[in-house]
Amino acid sequence: MKKLCAILGLIFASNVHAAAIYPIDRAAILAGSVFDLKVEFDTVVNEADLTVTINGVPAKDMLKATPKFIEKENGANASSISLANVAIDKPGQYVVKASDGKSSIEVTWEVYGTGARKAKNVILFIGDGMTIANRTAARILSKGIKEGKYLGKLSFDDMPNMALIGTSGVDSIVTDSANSMSAYTTGHKSSVNALGVYASRAKGNLDHPKVETIAELVKRKTKMAVGIVSDAEIEDATPAGVVAHTRRRSDKDIIAEQLFQSRADVIMGGGSAYFLPRSTPGSKRKDDKDIVDLFRKTGFSVATTDAEMKAAAKSGTSKLLGLYHLENMDGALDRHVLKKGSVDKYPDQPDVADMTKAAIDVLSRNKDGFFLMVEAGLIDKFNHPLDWERSVYDTIMLSNAVQIAKDFAAKNKDTLILVTPDHTHGLSLVGTVDDTKPSAEMRNKIGVYEQAGYPNYPKADKNGYPPSVDVSKRLAMTYGNYPDYYETNRPKLDGPFVPSIKNSKGDYIANPQYKDEPGAVLRIGNLPQSADSGTHTADDGVLNASGPGAERVHGFMDNTEVFRTMVDALGLGRK
Amino acid sequence: MKKLCAILGLIFASNVHAAAIYPIDRAAILAGSVFDLKVEFDTVVNEADLTVTINGVPAKDMLKATPKFIEKENGANASSISLANVAIDKPGQYVVKASDGKSSIEVTWEVYGTGARKAKNVILFIGDGMTIANRTAARILSKGIKEGKYLGKLSFDDMPNMALIGTSGVDSIVTDSANSMSAYTTGHKSSVNALGVYASRAKGNLDHPKVETIAELVKRKTKMAVGIVSDAEIEDATPAGVVAHTRRRSDKDIIAEQLFQSRADVIMGGGSAYFLPRSTPGSKRKDDKDIVDLFRKTGFSVATTDAEMKAAAKSGTSKLLGLYHLENMDGALDRHVLKKGSVDKYPDQPDVADMTKAAIDVLSRNKDGFFLMVEAGLIDKFNHPLDWERSVYDTIMLSNAVQIAKDFAAKNKDTLILVTPDHTHGLSLVGTVDDTKPSAEMRNKIGVYEQAGYPNYPKADKNGYPPSVDVSKRLAMTYGNYPDYYETNRPKLDGPFVPSIKNSKGDYIANPQYKDEPGAVLRIGNLPQSADSGTHTADDGVLNASGPGAERVHGFMDNTEVFRTMVDALGLGRK
Repeated sequence: MKKLCAILGLIFASNVHAAAIYPIDRAAILAGSVFDLKVEFDTVVNEADLTVTINGVPAKDMLKATPKFIEKENGANASSISLANVAIDKPGQYVVKASDGKSSIEVTWEVYGTGARKAKNVILFIGDGMTIANRTAARILSKGIKEGKYLGKLSFDDMPNMALIGTSGVDSIVTDSANSMSAYTTGHKSSVNALGVYASRAKGNLDHPKVETIAELVKRKTKMAVGIVSDAEIEDATPAGVVAHTRRRSDKDIIAEQLFQSRADVIMGGGSAYFLPRSTPGSKRKDDKDIVDLFRKTGFSVATTDAEMKAAAKSGTSKLLGLYHLENMDGALDRHVLKKGSVDKYPDQPDVADMTKAAIDVLSRNKDGFFLMVEAGLIDKFNHPLDWERSVYDTIMLSNAVQIAKDFAAKNKDTLILVTPDHTHGLSLVGTVDDTKPSAEMRNKIGVYEQAGYPNYPKADKNGYPPSVDVSKRLAMTYGNYPDYYETNRPKLDGPFVPSIKNSKGDYIANPQYKDEPGAVLRIGNLPQSADSGTHTADDGVLNASGPGAERVHGFMDNTEVFRTMVDALGLGRK
Repeated sequence: MKKLCAILGLIFASNVHAAAIYPIDRAAILAGSVFDLKVEFDTVVNEADLTVTINGVPAKDMLKATPKFIEKENGANASSISLANVAIDKPGQYVVKASDGKSSIEVTWEVYGTGARKAKNVILFIGDGMTIANRTAARILSKGIKEGKYLGKLSFDDMPNMALIGTSGVDSIVTDSANSMSAYTTGHKSSVNALGVYASRAKGNLDHPKVETIAELVKRKTKMAVGIVSDAEIEDATPAGVVAHTRRRSDKDIIAEQLFQSRADVIMGGGSAYFLPRSTPGSKRKDDKDIVDLFRKTGFSVATTDAEMKAAAKSGTSKLLGLYHLENMDGALDRHVLKKGSVDKYPDQPDVADMTKAAIDVLSRNKDGFFLMVEAGLIDKFNHPLDWERSVYDTIMLSNAVQIAKDFAAKNKDTLILVTPDHTHGLSLVGTVDDTKPSAEMRNKIGVYEQAGYPNYPKADKNGYPPSVDVSKRLAMTYGNYPDYYETNRPKLDGPFVPSIKNSKGDYIANPQYKDEPGAVLRIGNLPQSADSGTHTADDGVLNASGPGAERVHGFMDNTEVFRTMVDALGLGRK
């Protein structure tokens, strides 16, 4: 088997007993970026027989690092050797060969440099789970459409550069948001649930081989500011991916600490539960650490409402922590129209556009420029439970947020803006649902082709939100993958949809709460019964870009090339 | 009501009694292109009281045309007036006002010119119904993917320009292939089922206001050659859209004649049934016309097999009619792997790549250049019955066809290539299906996220087709909209999937033929019971482009702008 691996160069990371080298074969590594090199053998090897070379030179000499050998990793019959915090400065092809004296494995890396810095600022927008149908529906609802032609475009529709993005990970064709965000922020693919590390066979979540994130590079190599904004929990996979290193995205209390250690200058979103000591009501920490206090003590302004945020941004501060919700913040439909979700409990949350404005105001005080990541995280949070209206309203919100960045870039042309999903969902726009159609069965109220016509949503308000979604002729949108649920073909006016609940066997079944809604139809799921919601799809995402460095964005791109686009724009591969 | 229309400028084409002007409000019209101007009043009007002006000038004077007044159109109590075969040469904004002496309606047109000719040749590829998931799956199956990175790209993945395309029509957010192809070939949106005409209230299919197609423009204004290639019936909506004018795409016998009248130089595909006199076995004509004979008499080489096509292309002919099937041709999976469908009856069909090669060989003999439309029509034909494997194999075939065009363009750089769907389907890639999973229920054999891993299709052959689709770990792909059917999560090895059949009430029900397949699960449809298959979606499509004029392709584009891109490249708006 070892011989076979050596010959084929095949390494199956999911098999804990297979030999492996991290970074993996075909990794593209930014010159000078820091990473951990780890070799895992599939048997116990003799340290004296063990060699690791890079282009024929002993790795410890080339990388000037002291190897750490573990004879029986995890107490199992297999050895590993690691070289931590190493870097390769010179671009080129590097063949890494590891041998135990009997057989060997090898991988090849491409180390790439960058040109001179082209962009002062980089703003990366993530529409989490944003699918083309989200965009189409958001354009219809917010801009209007008449006789087939839209009356306007989303702010990111007309950026000059566009690409399709492949999002698959090391372990699977279907990614989660941790793995895919890591690819954007480190240039390395990883595995589901992993942030800033390769998923090795290490047992401890924090013991996996690390790769450096763009925020860390920026902080180590420049005097730029860093901002992290999301309307999800700020420790959730996407915002965490800007700075965190852990095998498990669920390590949210650790991630809160890593956010503090990152020296990011602006951090805003939900998820204060992991910033508060366990004694504080609502805390989800397992210890008594007060992370908010740590921020305060290092000069951060702290905001918990939109008003506080705006006051702080205006005050001239250069460091801002904003935590507006214990958990995920509320979406645009609940905040602006329905006043449901937890809006009554948190009446003064900023939205993603508000946070983008405040973040840019604060970060742009840094004369050396800034890197800002803004996530519209709830597009995904609402696509999961098949709540398309909410996911579409949040797509409109993302459009508003990107408009703010475009307005900034109009005056600061040295700003690269990227807008992209991290993965997609199985959402599509099929036609309309017309309550006036006579059939008793909801499916026969659906119009396709010429029977679809146009919906009758009221004109959007100045922020692009129609003041009502509960209209008599609505968009008919479908999700291609789902758990058991009751389909009502109606917006969920009482709060976000909860399509399924766990039964006593631990399987997810249709939530009976919706059983008696008018026209409700039981749909038996086409996902494993362990799935509580719709799941991500591996369909390519669509990335839009503008500004210096955006010329790299075209055709089909691997998600790791998004990292390369950003570090190239910032010249982070120059010595 | 009339007043209201006048004030709002709103015209509801679906209401036969509403007043209307064709071309419609906001139409963008190529300078010098020919169209019919029609005004429909909602009452009987007095011809003497009737005025139609364009920018204040009587339309008949400006357009130098004789109006045709119909007092009671269709015998109903409403008048109309038409000016046929008119054109406006000077770019600018034109306000068309029609009055019956009491009230008036108006529309505004934009007439646009073009620059000088930039491209000698234009090749428009239509992946009918091609959805992003088709591309993703085609890339996985044909190129392979390892640890998240593809081992190659589709031929149209890396063209330099890309745009999202809006496909909605005048009548509905959801288009069919006639309406959307008309937008590409005429620059005018129309309605479901219409080709090269606005859907007015005229009764006769051929009596609606016409707009000129790019092929007609090319033939009228240049000495260029025209080619039309499809693996569907050549009278089907997409190929027909290159030249036809009828309110109903189902007029296939008429369309066959219009194809002849078009003076196109290369016409190839299926659908010979409408070219043969009704006395010929297999004919679907209602008359004794022999359309093939008409072509022969005007100097066309005629091919009915791949061998004949290749011989004809080699012979030096400049006119080639190829009809390889009475109906739709067979798809790549049936032709190259399974030998099902009608492959035994038609063993020597060319595929889309073969036809593209032959068409380019013949058309490129014209020193003035050519316009070629190539449709991979079966992507859509297989997406409709939820037969994703077949639609994906045909996407691979399209990639091969585009590669041939790219190879030609590499030597003939003055060639604009566009690759685009005409609309999308609700297809997405959810994960994998693993037969080795222990559950009895098929849904629990589906793996999502890290449970998906990678499928085990064999390596593709030199044409990019894996030699087997019936593997133990397959892609799990879902359609978001469907009639009642039995889901088997397996490829249909015996021939294309027929998900539903009509019952005695005329509703479509699940086809019982698949009921006893292993793991088959009844899915109750989420479409009207009149739907026999999955239906089109209104989600934006993705267009890729290269060559002179491709710089117009970026951001979000209306489908009518594809026409504008092509005519601009060919300079067809110059006097």
